[in-house]
Amino acid sequence: MSVTAAQGFVAAGVKAGLKSSGNHDVSLVVNQGPMFTAAGVFTSNRFKAAPVLWSQQVLLDQALRAVILNSGGANACTGPEGFADAHHTAEYVANALATLGTEVGAGEIAVCSTGLIGERLPMDKIRAGIDASVRELSNDGGANAALAIMTTDSVPKKSEVLGAGYVVGGMAKGAGMLAPALATMLVVITTDAVIDADVADEALRAATALSFDRIDSDGCMSTNDTVLLLASGASGVQPEAQEFTSVLTQVCAELAQQLIHDAEGASKDIKITVEQAASTSEALDVARAISRSNLLKCAIHGEDPNWGRVLAAAGTTQATFDPDHVDVSMNGVWICRNGGLGEDRSLVSLANRQVDITVVLRAGSSEATVWTNDLTADYVHENSAYST
Amino acid sequence: MSVTAAQGFVAAGVKAGLKSSGNHDVSLVVNQGPMFTAAGVFTSNRFKAAPVLWSQQVLLDQALRAVILNSGGANACTGPEGFADAHHTAEYVANALATLGTEVGAGEIAVCSTGLIGERLPMDKIRAGIDASVRELSNDGGANAALAIMTTDSVPKKSEVLGAGYVVGGMAKGAGMLAPALATMLVVITTDAVIDADVADEALRAATALSFDRIDSDGCMSTNDTVLLLASGASGVQPEAQEFTSVLTQVCAELAQQLIHDAEGASKDIKITVEQAASTSEALDVARAISRSNLLKCAIHGEDPNWGRVLAAAGTTQATFDPDHVDVSMNGVWICRNGGLGEDRSLVSLANRQVDITVVLRAGSSEATVWTNDLTADYVHENSAYST
Repeated sequence: MSVTAAQGFVAAGVKAGLKSSGNHDVSLVVNQGPMFTAAGVFTSNRFKAAPVLWSQQVLLDQALRAVILNSGGANACTGPEGFADAHHTAEYVANALATLGTEVGAGEIAVCSTGLIGERLPMDKIRAGIDASVRELSNDGGANAALAIMTTDSVPKKSEVLGAGYVVGGMAKGAGMLAPALATMLVVITTDAVIDADVADEALRAATALSFDRIDSDGCMSTNDTVLLLASGASGVQPEAQEFTSVLTQVCAELAQQLIHDAEGASKDIKITVEQAASTSEALDVARAISRSNLLKCAIHGEDPNWGRVLAAAGTTQATFDPDHVDVSMNGVWICRNGGLGEDRSLVSLANRQVDITVVLRAGSSEATVWTNDLTADYVHENSAYST
Repeated sequence: MSVTAAQGFVAAGVKAGLKSSGNHDVSLVVNQGPMFTAAGVFTSNRFKAAPVLWSQQVLLDQALRAVILNSGGANACTGPEGFADAHHTAEYVANALATLGTEVGAGEIAVCSTGLIGERLPMDKIRAGIDASVRELSNDGGANAALAIMTTDSVPKKSEVLGAGYVVGGMAKGAGMLAPALATMLVVITTDAVIDADVADEALRAATALSFDRIDSDGCMSTNDTVLLLASGASGVQPEAQEFTSVLTQVCAELAQQLIHDAEGASKDIKITVEQAASTSEALDVARAISRSNLLKCAIHGEDPNWGRVLAAAGTTQATFDPDHVDVSMNGVWICRNGGLGEDRSLVSLANRQVDITVVLRAGSSEATVWTNDLTADYVHENSAYST
C-alpha cells in the first residue's frame, strides 16, 4: 500500500515522541533498487525550510536511496543550525542503513519535515526514531509511513495505480498547493517502473501542475512543501513517457483530492472551473482569485449562492473578458448571465459537500479547474487555538 | 458634524424601508456653494456597480451639487437596467432639489449604493427616501447621513479637522481598502475651503493612497467603493495645496482607523510595518502579503506570536531581501532575527486589541504600514449566516 505498493521499496513509520499526542511521527522510505532514479518539486516560498534546501541539493544528482520524514517540527527558519540538523539527519540515516549492509551516502537521502516553524528539532528523538524505523522497515510499512507524516490531517492519504506492468503508489499529508499551500504538503511517490531521470523530472512537473498546483485550500504558501518521486526499476518495465505521466498524474490527482477532502475545518469542497478563457494561464488566474475570496468561502459555508462574490473576485484579475458577458453557474444553475441577474438563486442547492462553480469568460477556448474549501469557524479554531 | 461640519453643506439621513431592520438607509448631502468643486476615487474592480459607473461619468466635469447614497442594496451586476436606475435616481434628486428653488442637473449628482450584489433596487422606496431627505436637509443633518450609509457597521464613522480658516469633515461606512476592500467602502468628505478642481483631485488621490489604500481587513475588493470630496468655498479661504492635502489626509486617516476598528467580527487591529525596504512599493507588497495571510490572522486571534507565518507570507513576494537577514518583532519583542529564532516568544503579550508587527528587510530605507484585522469565527458567522 502507498509507498510500498511498488516493488523494490520498504518503509516504516514509528513513534519517536516528536508529537505531543504520542502518535507516529517519523517515516522512512527506502528504495532497494536496482535503480535509484528520483525527481522532486518544492515550495516556491523564498523562506525555504532547511530540509527543503537539503533535499534540493541532494536531488541535483537525480537519484535517491531513501527519504526520511518527520512530523512534529518543520525545521524552518532555524538558520545554519537547522541546516546542520537536516544534514546530520541524512548522515544518521545513511549510517543506520549501513548496518543493514547497504552502502549509502548522506547525499542520496532526502529529508522532509512538517510542523511548527521556528523551532529546532529535538535531534535525540530524531535519531532514536531513525534507529527504530530502520529496524521496522518492511514491504508493508507503507501504511505506518503514511500515518507518521500526519499533522492536523484526520486520515492518512494513500494512492496506488497500476500501469502496464508496473505500479505507482504514494502517500501525502497536509492540504494545499505547492504555491501557495495551506500548510506543509509532503508527498512521496514510488514506482517500480524503469524511468530515465529526465523523464521522471518532466513527468513529476507535469503531474503536479495538474494536481497539487490546482488545489488551494486557504491561499497560504508553506516553507516546506515537497513532492518526491522515487523509481526502483524493479518491475523491469520501461513505459512510454506519456503513459507514465498519465499514471503518475492519476496518483497525484487522487492524493490532491484526499488533501482537499480533509482540509482543516472544511465542510465544503469547492470546484471552480473557468471556461472559455483566452489561455489556460488566464483561466487559472481567475479560478485562483475566486478560490482565495474569504467572503465567497464564507458564503458557501453558509450555503448561500452569492454569485456577486464570485464576480467581485474575478474582477480583481487582468484576464481577458468583458464584465458584461460573463456567466456564472452554481451546481448547474446559471444564476448570473452577462454579468447580471440570471436564474433564480433559490433554485441552487448547496447542501452537499461538493459545490461546483463554473465561470464562463467568453474570451477563448481554454479552461482550468481549481479546488478550494469553504471558510469555517472550525478553520479559525484549528489555526488560532494552538501553534502549528 | 461629519459632512455638515463645513459651511455650505446641508444633509439628511432617513428611513426609506430598504433595510429589513427598518433603520436609516437613504442619505443626501447637498453643496450650497458658492463653489461646487469635486473629486472622486473609485474601486479598481472591473465589475463596477452602476452607481460607480454613473458617478465616474458625472465627475468628468469635476463638480458636484449633491450626493445621494443608499444602503440596503449595491445596485451592482444589475446590467443596463441597474445603470438606468442610478441615472433615474440622480434625475429624481435633481427634480426634488428644484422644488427648493435650486436649479440642478442630474449630471451634477453622484450616486453611491451599498448592500447585496445582484439585485435591483426598489425604486419606489428610493424615490420616497429622496423626497423625505430633501424635506429634512439641514445644517446638522450630518449625523443622520452617517447613520443611513451603515450596513454591518456597528457605529457610524465621522471625522472633522480644522484647517487654517476652513474645515474638512467626512463620513464613512464599511471596512477595507479601495483595492481590495472588505465590503463596500463609501466615504463623503466636505470642505468649505476654496479649492481648484485639479488640486482637489490630486489631494484626494494623495490622501486616500496613505489612508484607505493602507487598510485591508480581509483582502476582498468591492464593486462599489467610492470616496468623494466636495468643496463649497464658503469659508472664502484658499489654503496652500500642501496644507490642504495634509488636513484632508488627517480626515481620511481618522476615518480609515474607524473602519478597521469596526471591521466585521474583528477582535484585533493589526498594524504591519515593513522597514528598510528597497522602495515604498516593495514595503507595501510585503505588508499586504502579510495582511492577507489567513493563517497569521488566525494566530493573532489566538494571541499566538507565530512569526513563522509572517515570514511564510513575506516569502511569497518578489521584494528585495535576503531571507537570512530579515527580522520580525511583535509588540516590540524581536522574536525573529536573521530569518531565524530571536527572543523568546513567551515574552510577547498579544492581549491588547492593537498588535504591532514590524518586519525589517535590510534592503533599503523605505517603509510602509498596512492595517488589517484578525480572522475570527465571528467573521465567518457574519459572512456566512446571511447574504451581504
